[in-house]
Amino acid sequence: MPRAGIELEAYLGRRIQQVEAALQACLPPAETFPSVVHEAMRYSVFAGGKRLRPLLVIAAAETTGGPVEPVLPAACAVELIHTYSLIHDDLPSMDNSAVRRGRPTCHVVFGEAVAVLAGDALHALAFDLLTRIPPPVDAATVLRVTREIAESIGTAGMVGGQILDLLGERRPHLPAIPGWPAEAGAAVHDIHLRKTAALITASIRAGALLAGAGEAALEALTRYGQRIGLAFQIIDDVLDEVGEATRMGKEAQQDGAKLTFPVVHGVAESRRIAAALSAEGVQALTPLGKGGDLLVEVAHWLLEREA
Amino acid sequence: MPRAGIELEAYLGRRIQQVEAALQACLPPAETFPSVVHEAMRYSVFAGGKRLRPLLVIAAAETTGGPVEPVLPAACAVELIHTYSLIHDDLPSMDNSAVRRGRPTCHVVFGEAVAVLAGDALHALAFDLLTRIPPPVDAATVLRVTREIAESIGTAGMVGGQILDLLGERRPHLPAIPGWPAEAGAAVHDIHLRKTAALITASIRAGALLAGAGEAALEALTRYGQRIGLAFQIIDDVLDEVGEATRMGKEAQQDGAKLTFPVVHGVAESRRIAAALSAEGVQALTPLGKGGDLLVEVAHWLLEREA
Repeated sequence: MPRAGIELEAYLGRRIQQVEAALQACLPPAETFPSVVHEAMRYSVFAGGKRLRPLLVIAAAETTGGPVEPVLPAACAVELIHTYSLIHDDLPSMDNSAVRRGRPTCHVVFGEAVAVLAGDALHALAFDLLTRIPPPVDAATVLRVTREIAESIGTAGMVGGQILDLLGERRPHLPAIPGWPAEAGAAVHDIHLRKTAALITASIRAGALLAGAGEAALEALTRYGQRIGLAFQIIDDVLDEVGEATRMGKEAQQDGAKLTFPVVHGVAESRRIAAALSAEGVQALTPLGKGGDLLVEVAHWLLEREA
Repeated sequence: MPRAGIELEAYLGRRIQQVEAALQACLPPAETFPSVVHEAMRYSVFAGGKRLRPLLVIAAAETTGGPVEPVLPAACAVELIHTYSLIHDDLPSMDNSAVRRGRPTCHVVFGEAVAVLAGDALHALAFDLLTRIPPPVDAATVLRVTREIAESIGTAGMVGGQILDLLGERRPHLPAIPGWPAEAGAAVHDIHLRKTAALITASIRAGALLAGAGEAALEALTRYGQRIGLAFQIIDDVLDEVGEATRMGKEAQQDGAKLTFPVVHGVAESRRIAAALSAEGVQALTPLGKGGDLLVEVAHWLLEREA
C-alpha cells in the first residue's frame, strides 16, 4: 500500500477484525447438524478473502457519518453473497477451478453437491441477515437496501455478468451473441460492470443508505462505486495475467480463454484504464469534501495493491 | 379431486390464472439480454407446476380476510424459490434427473452452467420481489415475512433437507451421520419437514402475516402448514412409487435409493400416515371456525390428488 499509508492500513485492520467477528457470529457453528454443509460454508467464507465488499459497506457508512455496528449485518450479507458466487463460479460446469487463494476449492474438498448447496445456503443466509438490521434504521430503508442488493446480483448484475463471462469464453470471435456489444472492449466493459461493479456499488450504497445519506451523496458514491468496482476487476485480471501461481494463490493465467481487459487491451493499457477509472471515482467524491478522504484512500489502495 | 368438489376447483383455477399472470409479469422477457438465462428461468418456471406454494400464500391471506393483490409478489417469490430448488436438485451432481413433469430438465436443455445460474437468478429475484410488496402492508411486516422465508430455505429448512436427502441416499444403513436420528422413520420425518414442510409453512405464514393475522391464527396456520406440508411430500413419494412414468411425467421410482416414507413404511402405511397428518392439520384450523373452510378443502385436495 504505497500511497495509502500506515493509517489506512491500521483502520482497515480494525474494521476487518470487526467483520471477521461478525461473520463468525452469523454463520451456523460447524458442528451443528447438518454439519457437512455448515463446514463447507465456513471453509469458503474463512478462506482468506480481502473482505473488500464489507469494508466498503462500513467505509460508506462512516463517510456518511454513521456508526459501524448497525451496518455489520449488511457487511456480512454482501460477503456471504460474494462467497456463494465464488463457490458456484468455481464448479466444474462453470470455471472448473480446483484452487482459490492457495487452497482447494469448495467442491474439491466437499464434493459438487455439497458445494452447490453451501452456495445456496449462503445466498439465503445473506437475505436473512439483511432483514435483521436493527433500529434506529427504519424498516423501509432496510427494504430498499435489500432490494438494491437483490437487483445487483440478478441477471442485470452479477449473474448476468457470469453468464456473459461464460458465453464470451466459449465464443472468442465476437459478436455472436444477440444484443452483445459489437466491439470487444465494450463487451468486456459490460461483463465487468455486471459481474463485479454492480455488487461493489450496491455495497457502498447500502452503507450510505443505512447511515442516512441524502440523494446527492448517494449519487456521488454510486459514480465512485461503479468506477472503482471496474478498476478493481481490471487490476485483478492484470495481477492474474502477470502473477506467479504461488503469489496469487490460484492458478495464474487460468482466465486466459476469458474476455478480460488485459486480454483485450494488454497489461499496460489495462493498468492505464484502471488508473483513469480510479481517478474518475476519486473525482466523483468531490461534493463530499473532507468527508470523502477515507474512500479516496481506499481507491488508491485498491489500485496499487499487488495481490 | 373427489371430495374437494367443483367450487374449490373453480376457485383454484381463478387463483392459478392470477399467479400465472403475476409470474409472467415478474420474470424478465425471454428476448431481453442476456437472453439465454432468461429463457432458462422461464422454461423452468412455466413447466406445468401445480403452483401449490403461491396458492397457499393466497388462501392464507383470504382466510385471514385480506385481499389477493398485495400478496401476489410473495406468491411469486415462493414459486421462484421452489423452481430454483428443483433446477439445482435436478443437476447431475445432485439427483441427476433428466426429466421433470414430462419435459427435459433445465440443465439438459440449457447446459449445466446456465442451469446453475438460472437457479441463482431466480433465488435473487424472489427476494427482489419480496421487497416490492406494496402498502398498505407496512415495511416491518414485509421484513418479517422476508426473514421467515429466508430461514425456511436455509440449512435449518430446505437446503438442510436436501443435504440430508443426499446423505441418506448414500448411506442407506442408518445411523451413520452425526446428529442424525437413530431410527429411519424419524430420519425421513426430519428430511421432509425441512425439505418440503418448511417452505410450505412459510408460504402460509407469509399470506397470513401480510393480511394482518394475529398470533393465535398464525399459530393455528403454522400447525396446519407443517402437517399438510409433510402429508404433501408423503403423497408425492407414494405417487412416485406406484405411478407409471408417463402419468407422473417423470421417471417413476427414480427416488428408489432415497429415504422416503414409502421406502421406510410401505405404500399403505404411508397413505395412512399422510391421512392422519392431514386430519391433524384440519383439526388445527378449529380456532378459525368457518374462516378455515377454504384451507380444509385444500387439505382434502392435496391428500386425494392423483398427480
